Amino acid sequence: MSDKLIIFDTTLRDGEQSPGASMTREEKLRIARQLERLRVDVIEAGFAASSNGDFAAVKAIADVIKESTVCSLARANDRDIARAAEALQGAARARIHTFIATSALHMEKKLRMTPEQVLEQAKQAVRFARNACADVEFSPEDGYRSDPDFLCRVLETVIAEGATTINVPDTVGYAVPELYGEFIRRLRERIPNSDKAVWSVHCHNDLGMAVANSLAGVKIGGARQVECTINGLGERAGNTSLEEVVMAVKTRRDYFDLDVGIDAAQIVPASRMVSQTTGFVVQPNKAVVGANAFAHASGIHQDGVLKARDTYEIMRAEDVGWSANKIVLGKLSGRNAFKQRLQELGIEMESEAEINAAFARFKDLADRKSEIFDEDIIALVGDESVTGEVEHYRLLSLSQRSETGERPHAQVAFAAGTKELHAESDGNGPVDASLKAIESQVKSGAELMLYSVNAITSGSTESQGEVTVRLQHSGRVVNGVGADPDIVVASAKAYLSALNKLHSNAERVAAQG
Amino acid sequence: MSDKLIIFDTTLRDGEQSPGASMTREEKLRIARQLERLRVDVIEAGFAASSNGDFAAVKAIADVIKESTVCSLARANDRDIARAAEALQGAARARIHTFIATSALHMEKKLRMTPEQVLEQAKQAVRFARNACADVEFSPEDGYRSDPDFLCRVLETVIAEGATTINVPDTVGYAVPELYGEFIRRLRERIPNSDKAVWSVHCHNDLGMAVANSLAGVKIGGARQVECTINGLGERAGNTSLEEVVMAVKTRRDYFDLDVGIDAAQIVPASRMVSQTTGFVVQPNKAVVGANAFAHASGIHQDGVLKARDTYEIMRAEDVGWSANKIVLGKLSGRNAFKQRLQELGIEMESEAEINAAFARFKDLADRKSEIFDEDIIALVGDESVTGEVEHYRLLSLSQRSETGERPHAQVAFAAGTKELHAESDGNGPVDASLKAIESQVKSGAELMLYSVNAITSGSTESQGEVTVRLQHSGRVVNGVGADPDIVVASAKAYLSALNKLHSNAERVAAQG
Repeated sequence: MSDKLIIFDTTLRDGEQSPGASMTREEKLRIARQLERLRVDVIEAGFAASSNGDFAAVKAIADVIKESTVCSLARANDRDIARAAEALQGAARARIHTFIATSALHMEKKLRMTPEQVLEQAKQAVRFARNACADVEFSPEDGYRSDPDFLCRVLETVIAEGATTINVPDTVGYAVPELYGEFIRRLRERIPNSDKAVWSVHCHNDLGMAVANSLAGVKIGGARQVECTINGLGERAGNTSLEEVVMAVKTRRDYFDLDVGIDAAQIVPASRMVSQTTGFVVQPNKAVVGANAFAHASGIHQDGVLKARDTYEIMRAEDVGWSANKIVLGKLSGRNAFKQRLQELGIEMESEAEINAAFARFKDLADRKSEIFDEDIIALVGDESVTGEVEHYRLLSLSQRSETGERPHAQVAFAAGTKELHAESDGNGPVDASLKAIESQVKSGAELMLYSVNAITSGSTESQGEVTVRLQHSGRVVNGVGADPDIVVASAKAYLSALNKLHSNAERVAAQG
Repeated sequence: MSDKLIIFDTTLRDGEQSPGASMTREEKLRIARQLERLRVDVIEAGFAASSNGDFAAVKAIADVIKESTVCSLARANDRDIARAAEALQGAARARIHTFIATSALHMEKKLRMTPEQVLEQAKQAVRFARNACADVEFSPEDGYRSDPDFLCRVLETVIAEGATTINVPDTVGYAVPELYGEFIRRLRERIPNSDKAVWSVHCHNDLGMAVANSLAGVKIGGARQVECTINGLGERAGNTSLEEVVMAVKTRRDYFDLDVGIDAAQIVPASRMVSQTTGFVVQPNKAVVGANAFAHASGIHQDGVLKARDTYEIMRAEDVGWSANKIVLGKLSGRNAFKQRLQELGIEMESEAEINAAFARFKDLADRKSEIFDEDIIALVGDESVTGEVEHYRLLSLSQRSETGERPHAQVAFAAGTKELHAESDGNGPVDASLKAIESQVKSGAELMLYSVNAITSGSTESQGEVTVRLQHSGRVVNGVGADPDIVVASAKAYLSALNKLHSNAERVAAQG
């Protein structure tokens, strides 16, 4: 029988650390449900001690997820660990993941601690965590750049204290597959009690090798857990891509000889949900989940594919959840048909009120767009008027015009709490004019860092535009997303959505890589 | 002394095979010049025999590039090779790259040839190519899935016929680093005359391991050439990323011990140029060239970076050409300042008329946008009114309006050859209305496959929007790009630009991976 490879998803923790990728509790909950459908073994739901918002998100996820283990990150101190344990109380299966840096550089420059102090703190933290939770993971931050002798002492100690998983992060994305695999193999050989823990890999993609490094840690090093994120989301160049690791292990089963529990058909829906929620686009030439990943352009290739599919295809698009756009609903579809489609898409609504709000948005959309695709429904469900999240600013109406030779002009009416505000402005374009009009009243002072638009569905100029606006203010970065068939309206919605996020106080301490 | 690793860029050949990435001759020439500034050793400029357009592009590049070897792909037949040689006549250094499939699957299903026939054809092709050119590369297509005994026979034969480079493609992206490295090592060991050729790797990223596979081919296999593309552009999940391979070899010089001739500071400009030209976005979490590649979000990381930069950074952003946006020019800048900035950006204009056209566009933009960034200049230079390319359709004026509760409406005037057309339409949004208005006159019947917008510069709502429109018609896929501070105008320009590409006849045969 083959060993099982544990898939540990950290989209909601390390992924969320990407500048601009921070998510609300409702967004995290929606993604956690999709990760459960994807059958990931462990969901790292957040870093409970970092903020009240993160605590609430971890708790909400722990309370509803039944099939996957729910994990919270915690620094190696009692307060962090106690907060993690508290947030995880409702979990069917809980894990506490505690960490401390072990590289000379990080201990000296960042922690300003001696190696002996770090060793002692790691030991105490794991002991404390084991009293709170049977499933404890320990990570030596920047482990791959740590002195192997010291690292062996730390890891032997924490295993003796009961750590059940040992994770070796390549925090800065510096590893090369052969070296990283050998590094883990030697640690496992040298540490006497290494067989008492499951070994795990956590790689970053700064040199484009996160997937290969992770798999070398598995094949050469003997690790049996991979930490990864949907779309490779994460700080800098991101984390190991879940979809790439999973499909590599499945496609090259002849080499890896490992089982993975993932339902691959949920990969593309998960990718879209994470991309739509965070506003982080997936490039077309991204493996597995990019729009072109299964597209063949050249004449010779097309010819080959027609003659025998496996001449150029090693995976099948439908196996990872790509399916043709389906026209599922139109303006004559009723509430029951809509509700059923939501269920088929795996979208769970909290209450009848939420379904009613979503259905109202659906009817409104169907009035303006004749064909409603699955992607439209997914976008619509993410709409704030549907999720019922705290929504200080709301668009009421917008009117704009532009004409060659004249300066574009926009008038916007929007709600701010219980007040109704009216504003108008000109600008370089109708979007600029609309955003300036809103800003003239809100006076947020936020800086626009990114503006992008994607059509939600293709195949028709009737597509809805999905606009992402990234704002920065006082060191905080937030993304707002808005969808509408009218791109100017979608832009105004996205801008207000970002302002709502700035409005809510989501201060936090953040964590290791 | 360290060996040199040859960087072979195939952005203009294999990269261009991405559905929608096809480029005009002028676009290819512009990118080739940037590749020369980047100091790539070999530029694969196209596949001369595949179409008259590709022939002209290879020829134009061969005629102007002096520092890099210019290469054309050719199937293993006399006609293709003769066309390649003809296109390369003006090159300072020329290479012919010929290929034929050697895997059982491809020989039987695609070529419908016996192994002996394939062997004979490879031999004849290399002999013919060597008579035309001293520098001949041979690729056994789908080499990694070929029978090693047969592959040894083929490669020994073509080396005996004078092939100077032997490239082993993992055409379908199926390889794993350790296995691919060993595969090449054994070929080199078994083939008696293997030391008479430089060995090369060519990997695809379907399982996310193209970079690691390429580097295993180098480290374990002893290859000394890597074939790659800017941004990892290419069919399906794309090719090996040039920027990732180069920065891995430079950053991990301790392990690879190889010299690369690349001027890394030209990497980000090259990435932007390829992205803007093809309309293929680079995801923010892309290694080296993604917008977030050097961004640190989490509090702990920021703290670490402030205390000691190398706690979290293994490369420096400025080393790969990231620099802060600079306000370079404004509406008072004169023609000389503009011309000088073009030179500093490495943009070469063909004629004074082209500079004048670009300067006119610049003044027009400066009237509407107070701060002109380098990115604006790069976008502006790509504008068709500047490049003077064949331009059947041209936007003359546009007027549009939308208002909550009413159907958006647009009026467009545009030139079609010497005719002036006027059209109007309503639509789901102002963009939809504008595109529908144009289509009501052009009646192209093309299907909209992708619509996306990126702000060219950030930091201000005054940014120009850069719109990419991908159209499909009768099996052809084209991208049109348009930039304007008014997103609706940019969309109309992009749509007309795509229609122009459909209008020009760029039929072609395409090639191997």
